[in-house]
Amino acid sequence: MEKMQRTPAQSEDAHYMKMALEQARQAEALGEVPIGALIVLDGRVIASAGNRRETWQDPTAHAELIALREAAKRTGSWRLEGATLYVTLEPCVMCMGGIILARIPRLVYGARDPKMGAVGSIYDFSTDERFNHAVTVTEGVLADECSEMLSVFFRQLRQKKKTAKMQPSD
Amino acid sequence: MEKMQRTPAQSEDAHYMKMALEQARQAEALGEVPIGALIVLDGRVIASAGNRRETWQDPTAHAELIALREAAKRTGSWRLEGATLYVTLEPCVMCMGGIILARIPRLVYGARDPKMGAVGSIYDFSTDERFNHAVTVTEGVLADECSEMLSVFFRQLRQKKKTAKMQPSD
Repeated sequence: MEKMQRTPAQSEDAHYMKMALEQARQAEALGEVPIGALIVLDGRVIASAGNRRETWQDPTAHAELIALREAAKRTGSWRLEGATLYVTLEPCVMCMGGIILARIPRLVYGARDPKMGAVGSIYDFSTDERFNHAVTVTEGVLADECSEMLSVFFRQLRQKKKTAKMQPSD
Repeated sequence: MEKMQRTPAQSEDAHYMKMALEQARQAEALGEVPIGALIVLDGRVIASAGNRRETWQDPTAHAELIALREAAKRTGSWRLEGATLYVTLEPCVMCMGGIILARIPRLVYGARDPKMGAVGSIYDFSTDERFNHAVTVTEGVLADECSEMLSVFFRQLRQKKKTAKMQPSD
């Protein structure tokens, strides 16, 4: 039997997802929920970001939204046509809304988010034709690594709370 | 017959919506789609913003999201519990997502947005219990003024495009 060969597109997606995972790791080091994002245009990384909600005390500071703002600044245009956004976790309604508004044509994500995901979990905006902008989605790229990083983070958080005898918060 | 009396809450909502309309007017003066937002906490305006997508070339620069970031900066916390957000137009999926993430308990909006609105039009996140955060909504406050401002803006835009013999864009 022949060994499965990865197509160039698959290995390219994995390559960029590893970079998004590195952003997630940097976020985690700051005490943030470990989620990272990257925007690639014409084979170049034009923006990368990790979750900064706690550090900046900004409710909108999800990795994807920060990356969208950075990419628009870099290109000088809010229209990010031709760009691919990589993110370790399925985007929420806010972030998927931003991705659509920025006219991002392709989204690649790692793990599913059954509680908040808007690209197949609680909603699927990518197939909603009312938005008048189509986003092609590849999911499950390095899903295990992306998911594991989040599981470890929340396990440790629960452990810390238990140790500190704190009341669980939402 | 007695004249209809406005309740204090109604006239307060109209008062703040007028201020949101002023933000919309300032946005329009910059060539932006005229939408304005305001955040009120304990009877004080803690943030106000108008749409800045074109001026900043930022796909996320809707009035609501700018106001959320400003309010969080002002209070020093991403949790905007106890605050009311006023906006001239029904929020889109991105903005309503941000409102939920910021734990805003009350939203007041002017006109409906049948194409993009996520609070009764194409979606209704305010009644979606999966978000684990309830937003009480009052809609239709100064709806005619809010809607008229947008109608005039788009009518003038079409006229300008026609005069310049430009091709219509999306």
